[in-house]
Parts: sequence; structure tokens; C-alpha cells
Amino acid sequence: MPDRSLPPAPVLVVGAGLLGTSIGLALRRHDVDVALRDVSAENLRIASGLGAANLADADTDPALVVVAVPPDLVAEQVLVALRETSAVVTDVGSVKGAPLAAVAAAAGEQVRRYVGGHPMAGSERSGPFAASAALFDGRPWAVAPHHAADPDAVAAVTALAGACGATPVTFTPEDHDRAVARTSHLPHLLAALVAGRLTDAPRDHLALSGQGVRDVTRIAAGDPGLWQQIVTANADALGTLLRDVRDDVDTLLSALADGDRPRLAALLDRGVAGTAVIPGKHGGPVREETTVFVAVPDHPGELARLLADAGELGVNIEDLRIDHDPGREYGLVELSVAAASVDHLLASLGDRGWETHR
Amino acid sequence: MPDRSLPPAPVLVVGAGLLGTSIGLALRRHDVDVALRDVSAENLRIASGLGAANLADADTDPALVVVAVPPDLVAEQVLVALRETSAVVTDVGSVKGAPLAAVAAAAGEQVRRYVGGHPMAGSERSGPFAASAALFDGRPWAVAPHHAADPDAVAAVTALAGACGATPVTFTPEDHDRAVARTSHLPHLLAALVAGRLTDAPRDHLALSGQGVRDVTRIAAGDPGLWQQIVTANADALGTLLRDVRDDVDTLLSALADGDRPRLAALLDRGVAGTAVIPGKHGGPVREETTVFVAVPDHPGELARLLADAGELGVNIEDLRIDHDPGREYGLVELSVAAASVDHLLASLGDRGWETHR
Repeated sequence: MPDRSLPPAPVLVVGAGLLGTSIGLALRRHDVDVALRDVSAENLRIASGLGAANLADADTDPALVVVAVPPDLVAEQVLVALRETSAVVTDVGSVKGAPLAAVAAAAGEQVRRYVGGHPMAGSERSGPFAASAALFDGRPWAVAPHHAADPDAVAAVTALAGACGATPVTFTPEDHDRAVARTSHLPHLLAALVAGRLTDAPRDHLALSGQGVRDVTRIAAGDPGLWQQIVTANADALGTLLRDVRDDVDTLLSALADGDRPRLAALLDRGVAGTAVIPGKHGGPVREETTVFVAVPDHPGELARLLADAGELGVNIEDLRIDHDPGREYGLVELSVAAASVDHLLASLGDRGWETHR
Repeated sequence: MPDRSLPPAPVLVVGAGLLGTSIGLALRRHDVDVALRDVSAENLRIASGLGAANLADADTDPALVVVAVPPDLVAEQVLVALRETSAVVTDVGSVKGAPLAAVAAAAGEQVRRYVGGHPMAGSERSGPFAASAALFDGRPWAVAPHHAADPDAVAAVTALAGACGATPVTFTPEDHDRAVARTSHLPHLLAALVAGRLTDAPRDHLALSGQGVRDVTRIAAGDPGLWQQIVTANADALGTLLRDVRDDVDTLLSALADGDRPRLAALLDRGVAGTAVIPGKHGGPVREETTVFVAVPDHPGELARLLADAGELGVNIEDLRIDHDPGREYGLVELSVAAASVDHLLASLGDRGWETHR
């Protein structure tokens, strides 16, 4: 009897980039047999050297094929796998509807062996050198069966997600694409527009940049080559949202022109409400946390000393942000802690010589 | 001879909220005489109790008045101060052009005593309890003289910024407003639109929210009552930018509809370029940093132990982010360090039993 908690093996991973190599490494933790394939001999050598595979592709008759290639190539490689093997086939692309449609059109009833997936993990870097067996630990991994999918194929992909350390979450392909349009693709595009507007600014104007604009624009640094593939593949769901955003921008423009405070307030209130519906840490409800600021000299060991002091006080740091001081060589560290711990923390850190404020 | 590095005193601070109380506290560090005024007797009592003032308003003939009231009330309170006193008058509002126009229209040539300011500091909280003498330390403080401003008034406001620990940066009122429209107000509004779109989502879709959407939307949690005043006051500069954004959204929509990759690439590339022009930490050029991920158990002391290990290795942590694991009670900690330190850090942390990846 195969172990029900592990995916069928051997597993062939097509694409030895960040995700493919990480999947190989994660499966090898459980001694699952893995073979790797990549058009780049160098990627293949690096990934194999890291221990992401134990079998040669040519000698392997896979029971599961994981297609981990750039979005534009997903449908093509899924079709190759369906044609060459009798295995269950999945992929790890960011969009599920468009590749499924292409596969279904070309593969006929063999599409029953294909079930798309999407691990919510990644990095601003790419390539096998960035890979890790721990990349998926505790992350959601969307499993997106279509209505004709073979139940065994769904079980195999769910087991793959679990064996990689992720938490499988089931969506229809359409719901998946609508969900990531809203939680990932739209934020990326609007971050890019905000960042793009900065390129017009006189350099001295940018001296007034604070943590807010840094946070809003951070993801806009992501690889444009990858992102144009992602957003193109999800054009329908994104189009709906972008039209809503255009209407919102028109509302803002007319409300600003008319000094119409209630309409401005409605949009701003809706934004506040949106920040509150994002699930809390650990996927649970949002916990009540408070922020404490501490000035920390900007050299090795000082941050450790602060956190050692906080640790000795028994206060858990829920989040931490380092806001470097533009004028001096020290940072202002923002600690998020449970609201009930704040008074104790402030008093005790003050006693130990830290300059703190709320 | 007065100390040239300190502002003229006594200083009357009008508004005992977060900023006004913090200014009082910062000035009292230098023994500058401060009186406070507020329509709220409670705010006044709290701020005085914290030590933000040493004089009674009624007994004080101020040499400098700092108006620290909500944006809608700035012009009115500046006019009161110009009428009641012969002092230099400044304010700390987020927008400079609109209040200046109102003051100039009503104050005649007395406007020469008014020079607006804008400390780039704040908090998601408000009120005197959130105040701190260290709030402005090392932050930029825009000083925005108009063409008719008295040079002594400009010097007084510049000295105020310095005495509060901030770095004064001079702008014309128009340039200031254009700068903050781009670096603060537009990011806020678009963060609110992205967050607002989340309120339509089925709750289970939000399970796919990652760090990206959290970062993009964080500032949208700010007080809508305050933000509607800010954006209304800066309607002209914001309108120009919002029309550009609407054009960008139209470009995205047509590029997605047509599958026009080069147009998508141009907008995404521009976003990448925008993230690179934000000044680096310490106001200097962006340093080459690399990110390392470390799995850290989510209880007191573990983060300190990690940073103590990094500190012993002589590696300075430039930035740190805690990405809580939705499925488990531990966090993935993202450390930013100088690129040259990465290999050493990864190897040494691995030796000490930490699970790391790039």
C-alpha cells in the first residue's frame, strides 16, 4: 500500500527553477523518488547538485509530473506530459483558467489526469540557487480541479502539496483566478503605477518618501518578464477589477474637484474595511497588537541586544520593522506586541536604557 | 545673545495632539519655554502631565506659534495667531499651498510672519498619549517659505525643526505639495482602492493573501477623517497625478485586452525603475542588499537568539521582516544584509542549527 500522505512516485519535475528545485528538495526530505528536467543543462546541474533529484529523467516512468515552467509555457508542457506519460500531471503556475482551457482543447479526455496547482510561495529571486526544501512550509497551496478531473489526480496533487509542507486549499480554476487577481495581480499592477509615477519626480522631491510609499511600491520591483505573462494569462479577472478601479479613480477625481467629502470618506472607509478583512497571522483572527518604537544603533549586535532584553521580559515580538533614520546611523525599530504587554515592555526597556516611544 | 540653534521662545503650541505634544516634549529637552493651547481640556491636561509645556498659555507672549491642528483648521488658527501676537507663526500640516492662500488673502502683509512646515513623522495613532520627544529624530521636516516670507521667520522655523531633532529641508509651498502628492497622498489613495476591492471578495478567496497585498494596503488603515482633509487640501497636485493614473489604467486595460506585451512591459519596467529612485536608507544611495530567510519558532527569545548569532558573526541586519506562517506557530524571518555577507551568514547560521534559505 502506498503511503496515502505522500504523492504517487516517482515524480518528474519539469523545470529546475526556484519552484521546481524547491519541490524536488521538499519531496526528497520524505525520500520520494524525484527526477528533474530542464532545457538548461546548468539549472539541471545546480538543482541536482543541491539534492533535488535522485533519478535520471531518461530512466524514469513517472507517476506524477509537476510542470514548473514560466506561465507562457505551462499549457505546452502539460500537454507534453499528458502525451508522453500516463501519469497525473499538475503545474505550479499563478493562473489556472487559461492553461486549463488550452490543455482541454488539445488533450481531449486525457485532461482528466491534469489538475492545476498554485503554491503561494516565491521569492523576489529566481533560479535553483534560491531554492529551499522549506519554501512551502505552512504556505497555502491552491489545488484547482476542473469538473472532469479524476479524483485520484486531485488526491495526488493534494498529497504533493502536503508533502511539500504546504496547506492545500481547494478552488475551482475560475475562483482561483478571481482570488489571485484581487489579492496579488491587482496589487502588483497598482504598486507598479504608484512606483512608475515616482520616475517623473525631481530627485529632491523624493527626500520626502517615507515608509508608506516604500511599502506600497515594494512588490513593483518584481520581474517584469514574469509579471507580463501572469497578468496576460489572467486578463479577464483582472480586467473586471481594473474597470472597477478606473471607476474609483473617476470618483476620486470628481470628488476632489467638487470638494465632495462624503464621497471621499466612502472610498477611504472602504479602504480601512479592506485592510481589516485580510486574514490575521497564523490564518486566525486578527489579534490586538500595539506598536512600540525603540531607537537602536545601526551596528551588529544592537538589535540582538534589544530583542534579548524583550525576550527576557517574556514579551513575544509579533512583527518588527526597521525604519532607518535618514539623518543618522541608527534605526528606529518598530515592534508589534500583544496590547497587554505594552506598558510592561516600555517600562522595562526604559529601565534598561533603551529610548522608546509608542 | 539667543542660541542660534534654538527657535525664538517662548513657543506657543496650538493643538495638543500627537504632533503638538511631541513638539512640546522635544523642545523641553532643550529647556525651551513652551505653552500649550487646545480646545480639549483633557488633551491639555494629558500633554501638560507628560511635560510638554512649562508655561500657562494665558501668561505667555510667544515669540513663535506652532499651529498643530487638523488640516481643515490650519488657516483659521494661523490667522488667529497672526492677529493675536507679533510672533513668527508656523504650522505642521501635510499640505502647504491651500492654507497659505487662505492666510495670504486674509492677513495682508502680516503673512510675512507665516512660514509653513511639515515634519515627515507621524503614527497610525493620534492624541497626546502617542506623543514622544523622539518622534522627529532624524526625520525630514519640510520648511516651505513663500516669496514674501520674512527671513527671520524662515530661520525661526528652520531652528524649530532642528531643535526637534529633525533635518530641515526647504521647498516652495508648490513643490512641497507636488512632492507629497506623489510620495504620500497618491500611494495612500491607491492603497485604499486596492484594499477597498478586497471587501467584495468571498472570505475564502482572501486565504490566498500574501505579504504583497499586506504591504500594499497597510497605509490604507489610516484615519479617513484626517485623510479626507489632506487630500481635499491637495486636490490640484493630486488631480494631475490621478489623471495620469487613469491613463495608465486605460493603457493596462487595452494592453490586456489586446495581449499587447510591449505596452505591459513598459508599465511594469517603469514600476521597477520607480522602486529604484526612492532614496536608500540613511538618505544615501541604495546599497546592494540580499535577503536571507530563516525559520524561527514563534515564542519569546528565539528571534533574539537568531540576531545574537548574526551579531556574533559581525553581520549587520539592514532590514528584517517577520512573515508569520499561516499554518504553524512559527515565523519565517526575512533578513536583509549586505550582499557580500550572505554566504558567510548562511553557512554560519546553518552550522548553528538554523534552517535557512535564500
